[in-house]
Amino acid sequence: MKLSERGELSLLKRIRERFSICSKEVVAGIGDDSAVVMPDNQYLLLTTDMMVEGIHFNLNFMTPYQLGFKIISVNVSDIYAMGGNPRFILLDIAWGGDTDDGFMEAFFDGVEKAMSMYSVQLIGGDLSSTQSGMAISAALIGYVKKPVLRSGARPGDRIYVTGHLGDAACGLALLKIINRPLPMECGDETDKPLAWRVMHPLISRHLLPEARNPNQYSPRATSMIDISDGLFIDLSRICDESGVGARVCLGQVPISPQMKKAAYALGLDPYALATSGGEDYELLFTAPPQEKFDALCIGEIAPSERVVVYLDKSEKPFSVEGYRHWH
Amino acid sequence: MKLSERGELSLLKRIRERFSICSKEVVAGIGDDSAVVMPDNQYLLLTTDMMVEGIHFNLNFMTPYQLGFKIISVNVSDIYAMGGNPRFILLDIAWGGDTDDGFMEAFFDGVEKAMSMYSVQLIGGDLSSTQSGMAISAALIGYVKKPVLRSGARPGDRIYVTGHLGDAACGLALLKIINRPLPMECGDETDKPLAWRVMHPLISRHLLPEARNPNQYSPRATSMIDISDGLFIDLSRICDESGVGARVCLGQVPISPQMKKAAYALGLDPYALATSGGEDYELLFTAPPQEKFDALCIGEIAPSERVVVYLDKSEKPFSVEGYRHWH
Repeated sequence: MKLSERGELSLLKRIRERFSICSKEVVAGIGDDSAVVMPDNQYLLLTTDMMVEGIHFNLNFMTPYQLGFKIISVNVSDIYAMGGNPRFILLDIAWGGDTDDGFMEAFFDGVEKAMSMYSVQLIGGDLSSTQSGMAISAALIGYVKKPVLRSGARPGDRIYVTGHLGDAACGLALLKIINRPLPMECGDETDKPLAWRVMHPLISRHLLPEARNPNQYSPRATSMIDISDGLFIDLSRICDESGVGARVCLGQVPISPQMKKAAYALGLDPYALATSGGEDYELLFTAPPQEKFDALCIGEIAPSERVVVYLDKSEKPFSVEGYRHWH
Repeated sequence: MKLSERGELSLLKRIRERFSICSKEVVAGIGDDSAVVMPDNQYLLLTTDMMVEGIHFNLNFMTPYQLGFKIISVNVSDIYAMGGNPRFILLDIAWGGDTDDGFMEAFFDGVEKAMSMYSVQLIGGDLSSTQSGMAISAALIGYVKKPVLRSGARPGDRIYVTGHLGDAACGLALLKIINRPLPMECGDETDKPLAWRVMHPLISRHLLPEARNPNQYSPRATSMIDISDGLFIDLSRICDESGVGARVCLGQVPISPQMKKAAYALGLDPYALATSGGEDYELLFTAPPQEKFDALCIGEIAPSERVVVYLDKSEKPFSVEGYRHWH
C-alpha cells in the first residue's frame, strides 16, 4: 500500500505499534504535543542531523533499511563525540505519496536495529508529505556527566583516532562505479576486478556506519569530535575551538588493506581518502601524552602550526578539504 | 550573495554571529557535536515540527521572515500545549544553492523575533543543501513541573479554547485568492471586495501565528492540546487519549467578525473553517466545571459520544476533518 492510500493517521498508528515505549522515564511519548521525559541529574546533550535525498543519499545506492539505520547512527555519533549516552530520539519524516509499505517497514527495521544497538528510544517526531525528494531528520537527546568539548585540546596532547579512515569514502566511490558496468576485463594491475570480500567492508562502512562508543576514551580525553566530514576538516575544528595547531604524521593514519587495494584499483589516493573523505564516524580525540589508549596516535597538538608530516619527513600545511554544502 | 557562492562554513559563521549565546545554562551551543545544557529539576519536554516547501508553505504567499517566525512559533505551541516553558531550539535548514543573502537574513530576522518573543535560545542544528524545494525542521526543548497531557480529560469537564478559530484557514484562503487577480468588480453581496482591515488580521494569523502562553490555564487543566490541525481533529485526539467523548456547542465556538465577513465573501462556511481549519494555534483544554477561566467554554466532555450541537439544538457526530498528509 502506498502512503497516498494509507494516509497520515495510519502511518502514525503503525509507528506507535512498532515503537511502543515501556520505559518508566518516558512519561509521554509518541502521541502528545511534546514528549515528556524524567530529568536526569547530568548535563543534557542535544543534537540533530538530517539526510536529504540527492544530497546525503541516493536510493539507487542505498536501501531503506540502510537509510533508517544511518539516520540514527549519525546522530548517535554526535552524542558519543561529547562522551555522552544517547537516550531519546525524535524523528521527522518527509516522504512522497508513492512511498510503499515495503519501503516503510524496511526503513523502520533499520531504525529499530540502530535503536536497539545504541539503546535509544523513539519518543516523538513529525510526519510530512513532500512534492519531490525525501528528507529525514532526527533530533537526539542524551546525558553526560562531563562533556568532552572540541575546545579542550592543549599543545603537547596526542591526537588519536579510533579506527581506519577513508573506508566510507572509498565505499561510496565503489558504489558509484558499481551503479555503472564494472571494468571486469582489463589486464592492467590497477584495473583488476576487485573481490567482494575487499569491497564489502568498505561499502558497508558507507551504508551502515556504526558510531564508536567513547566510554573508554572520554574520561581522559581533552577534546573529541566524530569524523563525519573528513580527518583534516574535523581536526581543524578542534584546532579552531581550542585555539591550537596540530601535527599529523601521514604514515600513522590508519588505512585498511581493503581500502588501499580498492583505492589503487579506482585510481584514487588512499591517503587523500583517509584525510579528506567523510562519513567514517570514527572518533578523533586528544589526550595528554602520559595517557595510554587502545586507539591509534596519529600526531600531536602544536601551539599554532597545522601541518601534515609526509613519509619522507617533509611537511606541508594541511588543507581543510571535506564535503561542504553549496560549494 | 547566493549560498552556492557563500558556502556552508560562511553560513554557519553568520548563524553563530547572529545567535551568539551568553547564557550560563548553555555549556556548549552552536559549534560542537551536540549542544550541552545544564539540567533543570523539572520534566523535560521534547518536540519537533518541520515545514516543507509546497506542503506547509508556498514562497509565493509567504516571506522568509514569516517562515522563520512560524517554524519557531509552531514548535513553541507544542511545548505550551503541555503547559511547559520552551527553552532551547535546534534548527535544521535545507536550502537550495540559489538562496540569497536577503532571504537568509530575513529568515533569521523572523527566527530572532520569535526567539525573543518566547525567550528561547538557538543552541544547534544542521545545514544541508537540497536539489529542489526547501525544508526547515526545528526541535524544541522545554521544561515543565507538571505536564498537561492529552489523556487527562474526564466526563463533566468543560472544554475551552483560548481565542477565535478559523482565522488562519480563512487567511490562507484569502492568500490563495490574492495570488490571482482579486474579484473587485462584482455586484453580488457575497463577492464584494473586502477591506484590508478585514483581511489583514486573518492573513496575519496564517503567516505569523503566535503560540498561546498556557500559564494561566495549565495548573488547573486536565488535558490540553494546541489546535494545529483543526478543532474537531484535535479535540478527537484528546478524546482518543482520554478514552472519553465530547459535546461541542457550535454556537459557542468563537468566530471573529472579520472571519465571518471574509468567509461569506469567499463563499465559505465560517463554522466549517472554525471547526476543521488548521493552524490557529489556540489552546484547547479541559478542566473541571467549578474552575473559572479567561477562555471560552465551547462544550463539555461526555462519557463516549462525540457530537456537535447545532444552533437549532440538533446533534450530529462530529467528523474529524482537518489537514492530513497523503490524503
